Order: sequence, then structure tokens, then C-alpha cells
Amino acid sequence: MTRFALTLEFDGAPFMGLQRQAHGPSVQQTVEDAAHAVTGEAVTMHAAGRTDTGVHALAMRAHIDIAKDFTPFRLMEALNARMRPNPVAVTACEEVADDWHARFSCIGRAYIYRIVNRRAPLTLERGKAWLVSRPLDAEAMHRAAQALVGQHDFTTFRSVHCQARSPLKTLDRLDVRREGEQVLIEAEARSFLHHQVRSMVGCLAMVGMGRWREEQVGEALEARDRQALGLNAPPDGLYFVRAVYPEN
Amino acid sequence: MTRFALTLEFDGAPFMGLQRQAHGPSVQQTVEDAAHAVTGEAVTMHAAGRTDTGVHALAMRAHIDIAKDFTPFRLMEALNARMRPNPVAVTACEEVADDWHARFSCIGRAYIYRIVNRRAPLTLERGKAWLVSRPLDAEAMHRAAQALVGQHDFTTFRSVHCQARSPLKTLDRLDVRREGEQVLIEAEARSFLHHQVRSMVGCLAMVGMGRWREEQVGEALEARDRQALGLNAPPDGLYFVRAVYPEN
Repeated sequence: MTRFALTLEFDGAPFMGLQRQAHGPSVQQTVEDAAHAVTGEAVTMHAAGRTDTGVHALAMRAHIDIAKDFTPFRLMEALNARMRPNPVAVTACEEVADDWHARFSCIGRAYIYRIVNRRAPLTLERGKAWLVSRPLDAEAMHRAAQALVGQHDFTTFRSVHCQARSPLKTLDRLDVRREGEQVLIEAEARSFLHHQVRSMVGCLAMVGMGRWREEQVGEALEARDRQALGLNAPPDGLYFVRAVYPEN
Repeated sequence: MTRFALTLEFDGAPFMGLQRQAHGPSVQQTVEDAAHAVTGEAVTMHAAGRTDTGVHALAMRAHIDIAKDFTPFRLMEALNARMRPNPVAVTACEEVADDWHARFSCIGRAYIYRIVNRRAPLTLERGKAWLVSRPLDAEAMHRAAQALVGQHDFTTFRSVHCQARSPLKTLDRLDVRREGEQVLIEAEARSFLHHQVRSMVGCLAMVGMGRWREEQVGEALEARDRQALGLNAPPDGLYFVRAVYPEN
């Protein structure tokens, strides 16, 4: 058996999320089916994160174990050929040690959330960003976001379907900046709760629109109550961008 | 009658091009139908350029004449509401003088062409860029491109369906640069022949892949023969980005 680490890029729109689901297509099933077709082996994929329906990835990390002899390049090419026309691509592939685990070895995860802030509907960016038509104050959003950085009980920002044992998480970074008509939000942590990034973005948008005072984000956090959530941002604007592993 | 200048953004994929066609949907028809629905008037749209099937625009300029009383903002909002779910949006709207003409007053047009240069298939960028899997030498492409700058007979780079009276055009700029896995080509001229940008990009890609010597681009130009064309790049990567008008 050889363990291969994969870097995956995908458009989340047609999938029920990354993880295999009984009731619809998933990124995991797409990769596993391709790996099975290529090797004849029953392959299970493990990924660094579990993204939701409609959430995208620029560089998700995952691993699969293959008995058949493959160079990383040939495996990548074969998987990509088999996955067409699904919008999933292996952009990098390498052999890793047997104890390297895409999920359990991962010590950091980063997302970027893209808001397009304008009146006009989306055309080329449809499904790829959240359209917010009210003017957003990105600087106020950034200031408000800092109340969430650090170790906190993120119950307010957690889906009712979240399976994590504890609502305690340490948020390392939550930065908001404007680039032209876009407002970009970057979030980094060792791990996130289900819907945490989208819930945080939704509340920051409330601040940006002037419907919440900046302090209300911290107040919502302290409430430790899902009812205190202002808004859950749609999946369209969310991208998994980086999984971090220890050196060596 | 009031003349309104529109700035249009659109995804070219579902259209038979910008110009109205008897046999399928067009950007022009989408805007004119919306304007008719909003005003009750028979409206004709004139645009700075005529893009092909699958070609996109970030900022096409166009104009329409409307008798009914509208502020530019209300007209923009009404058109955008009516055009859904077509991927066309009016991103700016202003009143202009009656003798301002989106096509005939336009003294400069600019396109950008996006190549994604990697082995892996496109996912999020599908339909929005040209995937070239052989490594491209963007610097060689830029050098080769300079042979096309200036006034030339562009017969080699002209579609057989081109309706322009003369194949003589003055190309003001043709720059190629790499940004990560993307190779971006920017072209500026007063006006272009039909398929000119895509034909130029196709030949530059031949150079970038090492299948053509740099000098062959100039030789193809001098041949003044469509048969000398190396390759016509697909529409997916082409974006109309700017129309220039005289001040005042």
C-alpha cells in the first residue's frame, strides 16, 4: 500500500458537500469512484475538512491508499481523466508516509469568503460569491471581527447539526478587507465548527450594513445561543484555501 | 427621448454572442426585451463591440434611447430585475448626449484573454478560461507578440465571416504576462477584426508551447493568408474589458 496525498480543487455547486452522502453526489464519492475505476481497488478518501453543499475548495488536502503501482503523476492524471466532467481536479499528488493523515495530521485550516458588494446581480461570479447589495463598511467589519479571535465557546456560530464534542475553538485570524467591489474575509484556525465561518461572516455583514453595532458581534458570542445569530451567509462565497501540516 | 449609456457585464456562455440572432439568445435581445418590458417601447441597443458566442464582458458599453421618464438608477434597477436569470447585468447607467454613440463614438477597445496553464482540468474556472496543459513560456509569447503591434494587414488573423471593409488595423498593445498558473494577454486597438484577438492568442500559444519559433508570428502576419494561422483560441478565455470614448 502506498499513501498518496492529494490537493483537490472543486466547484461545490453540484455536490451535497465533500463527504459521501447516501442521497446525492459528493466530492468524496467522485474521487473514490475514479480511484476504483483506475485501480480496481476499494478506495476510501480522507480529507482535511468537510465542506458543505455549494462550498468550494481551491486546495483541499486529502489522502488515499493504493496497492497498485503508480507514480504520483500518473495517478493524478488518471484520476483527473476519470473524474471528468465533474468539477473536481487533483492539482497536486505526492507519496506520503503511512502515518500521515489528511484529517488527523492537519494542524491548521484556512478559508476565504468572497462577498461582491454592489447593486447589480452576479453574472460571471454567480454561485462563486455572495451578492450583498447594501453598502458594506469593511473596516467596521474588520474591527468587529476581532472580538471572535482567540479561544471561545462558539455555540452561537455553530449549526444545530454540528457533531463536534465541544463548542470551544481557537480562532487564530479573522481579517476583513475591501478590494474594489469585493469584500474578502479570511479565517484561520486549527479547526472550525460546522457552519462557523458562514455564521461569523453573516454577523459581520450585519455590522457592515449598519444593522448591528460593532459590539453586537462580541455580545452574540457571549450569548452562547444559536438564536443570537444575526445571519448565516450562503455557501456560494466560501472557499477552503489551505490545510497546514507539521514540517516533516 | 433620452439616451442612456449602459455598462454591461455578462457571461457569454449561454448566448449566441452579443448581437441579436434569429436562431438563438443574445445579449442584445436580453437587454432589448427587458427594456421593452420596463418601458413598453420598442428599444434598440447599440454596443461598442460585437462579441462571439462564449465571449464574456466585464464592461461592455452600449446605449439605448428611452422616451419614458427614468432616472439612470431606476432604469438600471428595472433592467437588472427584468433580465434575471440571464447572466447579464447593467453595472452602470448614465444619461448621455443624443449624439453619443456606443459604437461610433468609441475610439478604443480592450480585451483580456485568460489562459490557465496546468495539467489539471478546470473546475471553478470552467468556461471562463482556456486550459493549456503544455507549459507556456510567457516571456517568449510577449516578445513574439510585439511583431503584431502597429498598423498591419491582419488577413491571417481574420475570420472568413469578418464583415470589415478592410483588413488593415492598428494594434496599440499586445502584452503577455504570467500570474501564477495563469497567462494573461491584453490587447488594445481602436477596433479589431472578427476573431482577431483569439487568432493572435492562438499563434502566441504556439510560440509559448515551443511549437512555433518566435519569428513565425511575424511571418504568419506577412503571409496575409488565413491558412498561415496556427490556432484559433477558444472563446472561453476572452473578456471585453474596456471601451474608450473622447473626453466630453
